[in-house]
Amino acid sequence: MDYQAILDRVHAAVKPVIGSGKVASYIPELAKVAPNQFGIAIVDLEGNVYQAGDAEMSFSIQSISKLFGLTLAFHLEGDSVWSRVGREPSGTPFNSLVQLEQERGKPRNPFINAGALVVTDMLLTHYASRGGTENALIKFIRKLADKMDIGYDRAVAESEQRTSHRNAAMASFMKSFGNLNNDVSDVIEAYCRNCAIAMNCVDLARAVTFLANHGVVPWSSEKILDASSAKRINALMLTCGTYDAAGDFAFRVGLPAKSGVGGGIVALMPGECGICVWSPALEASGNSYAGSVALEMLTSMSGRSVF
Amino acid sequence: MDYQAILDRVHAAVKPVIGSGKVASYIPELAKVAPNQFGIAIVDLEGNVYQAGDAEMSFSIQSISKLFGLTLAFHLEGDSVWSRVGREPSGTPFNSLVQLEQERGKPRNPFINAGALVVTDMLLTHYASRGGTENALIKFIRKLADKMDIGYDRAVAESEQRTSHRNAAMASFMKSFGNLNNDVSDVIEAYCRNCAIAMNCVDLARAVTFLANHGVVPWSSEKILDASSAKRINALMLTCGTYDAAGDFAFRVGLPAKSGVGGGIVALMPGECGICVWSPALEASGNSYAGSVALEMLTSMSGRSVF
Amino acid sequence: MDYQAILDRVHAAVKPVIGSGKVASYIPELAKVAPNQFGIAIVDLEGNVYQAGDAEMSFSIQSISKLFGLTLAFHLEGDSVWSRVGREPSGTPFNSLVQLEQERGKPRNPFINAGALVVTDMLLTHYASRGGTENALIKFIRKLADKMDIGYDRAVAESEQRTSHRNAAMASFMKSFGNLNNDVSDVIEAYCRNCAIAMNCVDLARAVTFLANHGVVPWSSEKILDASSAKRINALMLTCGTYDAAGDFAFRVGLPAKSGVGGGIVALMPGECGICVWSPALEASGNSYAGSVALEMLTSMSGRSVF
Amino acid sequence: MDYQAILDRVHAAVKPVIGSGKVASYIPELAKVAPNQFGIAIVDLEGNVYQAGDAEMSFSIQSISKLFGLTLAFHLEGDSVWSRVGREPSGTPFNSLVQLEQERGKPRNPFINAGALVVTDMLLTHYASRGGTENALIKFIRKLADKMDIGYDRAVAESEQRTSHRNAAMASFMKSFGNLNNDVSDVIEAYCRNCAIAMNCVDLARAVTFLANHGVVPWSSEKILDASSAKRINALMLTCGTYDAAGDFAFRVGLPAKSGVGGGIVALMPGECGICVWSPALEASGNSYAGSVALEMLTSMSGRSVF
Repeated sequence: MDYQAILDRVHAAVKPVIGSGKVASYIPELAKVAPNQFGIAIVDLEGNVYQAGDAEMSFSIQSISKLFGLTLAFHLEGDSVWSRVGREPSGTPFNSLVQLEQERGKPRNPFINAGALVVTDMLLTHYASRGGTENALIKFIRKLADKMDIGYDRAVAESEQRTSHRNAAMASFMKSFGNLNNDVSDVIEAYCRNCAIAMNCVDLARAVTFLANHGVVPWSSEKILDASSAKRINALMLTCGTYDAAGDFAFRVGLPAKSGVGGGIVALMPGECGICVWSPALEASGNSYAGSVALEMLTSMSGRSVF
Repeated sequence: MDYQAILDRVHAAVKPVIGSGKVASYIPELAKVAPNQFGIAIVDLEGNVYQAGDAEMSFSIQSISKLFGLTLAFHLEGDSVWSRVGREPSGTPFNSLVQLEQERGKPRNPFINAGALVVTDMLLTHYASRGGTENALIKFIRKLADKMDIGYDRAVAESEQRTSHRNAAMASFMKSFGNLNNDVSDVIEAYCRNCAIAMNCVDLARAVTFLANHGVVPWSSEKILDASSAKRINALMLTCGTYDAAGDFAFRVGLPAKSGVGGGIVALMPGECGICVWSPALEASGNSYAGSVALEMLTSMSGRSVF
Repeated sequence: MDYQAILDRVHAAVKPVIGSGKVASYIPELAKVAPNQFGIAIVDLEGNVYQAGDAEMSFSIQSISKLFGLTLAFHLEGDSVWSRVGREPSGTPFNSLVQLEQERGKPRNPFINAGALVVTDMLLTHYASRGGTENALIKFIRKLADKMDIGYDRAVAESEQRTSHRNAAMASFMKSFGNLNNDVSDVIEAYCRNCAIAMNCVDLARAVTFLANHGVVPWSSEKILDASSAKRINALMLTCGTYDAAGDFAFRVGLPAKSGVGGGIVALMPGECGICVWSPALEASGNSYAGSVALEMLTSMSGRSVF
Repeated sequence: MDYQAILDRVHAAVKPVIGSGKVASYIPELAKVAPNQFGIAIVDLEGNVYQAGDAEMSFSIQSISKLFGLTLAFHLEGDSVWSRVGREPSGTPFNSLVQLEQERGKPRNPFINAGALVVTDMLLTHYASRGGTENALIKFIRKLADKMDIGYDRAVAESEQRTSHRNAAMASFMKSFGNLNNDVSDVIEAYCRNCAIAMNCVDLARAVTFLANHGVVPWSSEKILDASSAKRINALMLTCGTYDAAGDFAFRVGLPAKSGVGGGIVALMPGECGICVWSPALEASGNSYAGSVALEMLTSMSGRSVF
């Protein structure tokens, strides 16, 4: 498939809607990002890179870090992860406490905030005596993306931490149910740092390619997950990866994907390629508006989806 | 792929768990079904049939009728269907009224009871002057399954209707929000009749094969849906087809599927085949226990899933 | 206490706010009532009547009928009433189904719609072989109000019935939990008829005076309830009688009261008198706006409340 | 009225149920209290004390401190209190977050935990430059109870603080809605200290007598609240003072009351006396079981209630 030609067509076609929607405003640092940006990249299983627009512009990966955090925890802990976090779509906004009360402190899935806090707690415990999650998750992502100079944006992390009372509420709430082992403030700090990791479309597309390749990083042949586990992460992305719009996203796009309020969305075509699109203005559920449209165009034009 | 060999292996491997779980008891007629039964069938795009166990034993399709109802409504009405019913996983049991209140009478998706009641209402209105939904939906299924003697079980339909106060509650509730045009009792009657349609695994596997074939019935070449619409129905099955266990089902099985409390589950491998498995005893979410296990084995053994 | 002087002062003081708020519009017949009306009446334990404004203008008693229905059921069945309906404030709007789901079909109290439907069901069963609730409740009210020509407004009853899908939803829902014995349509019909009973302020003030007199109708010496039961009904009015504004109402007014969306509010001063105020325009919770203000003035000016 | 004779009769009659129920166990220090204790005291408007049982045994006042906190805040801030906390019964358990989400961080009333946290926050802000709430609230209570050696139990305060993740969750949650001005940890610390205040029945009965006396402390003639405000606090106690059993409590007892999980309940008869009963074993809603029964007996035997 001629990915470059498709990306060029998508880029041209998506232009009228770039900037439609609203840049995330609850984190002051994110609110400063100019909405009129758009980038897209594909990395195939041979490592070839295809890109269009601002694909090398760095942005805050935000909730996309939840995918890497889960992958690392699943890699380290295996199925015991699921004793503390579920695998079901939530049917409610990403930061709801209602469901957490009904289900007694066990978050519905690892891609809503509560679930990612539990995963962060697991990683904190795992790395307690090994120098902290901070380096661990970033090192892991560097390996997946095959790039050493990935880091996080301190200003974003601090901005996020100052406004994360709701995440603190969820963490305290889970702690009251016995589903958090570390201090709430430590978990929040690590969580905010992970959300503030800065990457571009090319790096992110490369970093998820192993999920299109049965869990193996194509260029290094390192096995991150076995084939069955990789398939399962993909399934989880499809059912839970785009907040409370996952059903609609699957309906329109039909690819496993994970979005972040920084405007990035990673996706993948199993057996073919990793994908990342970015445009900062969001639709009501918190997914990039132009990014979603671009992915829908991509699957329509290429005739590819998982279905 | 040697489907017959795989079905035989699945059948042998699943034996220890056949009968585990509980037969649906809220409909008296269903409670009489013996739990120790199991059948499975595959129909490929050439129409070849593969089967094991009680694959020609007739059972009550129950919520699988929601898939056919939606397909018919989508076929007739196109995207206007989505103005009255959503496409998101519900995150709650299949018969909850809570969400319906929060979302002001618009059901989250067409595969929960509330959504199927709205779809039934659409079909009733459409066929009002044309002899009723009863024949319409059964005729549609006969065409898909290429079999003329499919009908519904009067005793089950009546048993269901006598105990459908909760469905009546949902229908009245939606009517209070203006999302039901026909009389509540007419909608309930049609809905119960559709649930009481009796089919076997071979018929059901055949009836869903068009969804694995871009919307075209392979043996008649009749186009039921265009390729894009068929893909979308599959996406909806994956995210919403197995009640509040859809995330877990996608995680373990990774195929679009729709289950019913009669113990049947239809599924499909895009581009390959239609599938149906049946075993009456259910897990807590209302899906066939042995049936789910069998489908998980099938994807593990065949190495096939959509991911 | 000089009730007439106080009523005159209240009437004068309340004038600026008469008509503020909104006349109930969900029942078409009620929407026709002119908002600029106001009446108030007090009946003391000797039967003396004090009144001001449109106190002899007839209006639809609506939810005030819930008070009479409960009294009659409590009179007939005693404490067994409480096995089917609770005694707690609901903390939610009067027609919510959410709580009903959480509490498995047992309404929180007899003054929300769901609770009144259960009470209506009890009365229907009791009078099944005795000529129906219709006459029973009206006869009971005639006796309390010492007036023979009280009846119900057929146009209002029918208007209400045509738009009572939500009440039908609640009734069906409770039936699904086994907490309704009669047909949903029969319960709804009786319920709507009871709501459509037409009375004026003087009649209503007289009809509740027994609750200020330890359960005994002063002029006939008939004991409707024993002193302890009368006290309990009063407690229930204070905690649950004014929809989801009961706390605020107790805070501001401090008297047991029951309101209806027709704009009437009955209240009482234990040991002193029965009270009724009426003004059709409602505040957001469904209580008469000017009526609430008038009762607040009444307790401020008289220095009387239960506290 | 011969209070002493009534207390003696109540004490004798309640004996069979003393110890029924469960001592609060979520705070380890409280779990150590022996369940078989019972005390009751009445203080009339002349300051006469009547008592029976363990009425001078000190216990942890727990949520009864919410009454004193609210009184102090209302005394200091007047009606502006109600811009941050409501006056409606909650209809849910005392520590629910669900309602807080629906009502966007404004607690339903000051007697549920969330509401008391907001009141504590108000007091912290008020006393920030004046030596802290700690002394302020205790000094206030000492004045009301006319007793200088009232303090708090450090072991209970620390035990409570170590297990107050759920309260921290609520505080963080309200902070996310902008309804908390101080640091979460400072609010929690002050809140736990207030709950750990230790008093006996005689002191507590005396401390609430001003609420039976139009807001004036009888022995010092100090006006704490004006008559209207005192009446309003009483109304709030009746509708919201006994957790999610307030309706039932009003129904059975019919007096304004506030309970704590330490087993104490304060109540009052307007115009007559302050009351306190204590017995550590609780019913399901968190109110003293024997204490509730004793108060019901007291109103039955004395023929007094507000209704």
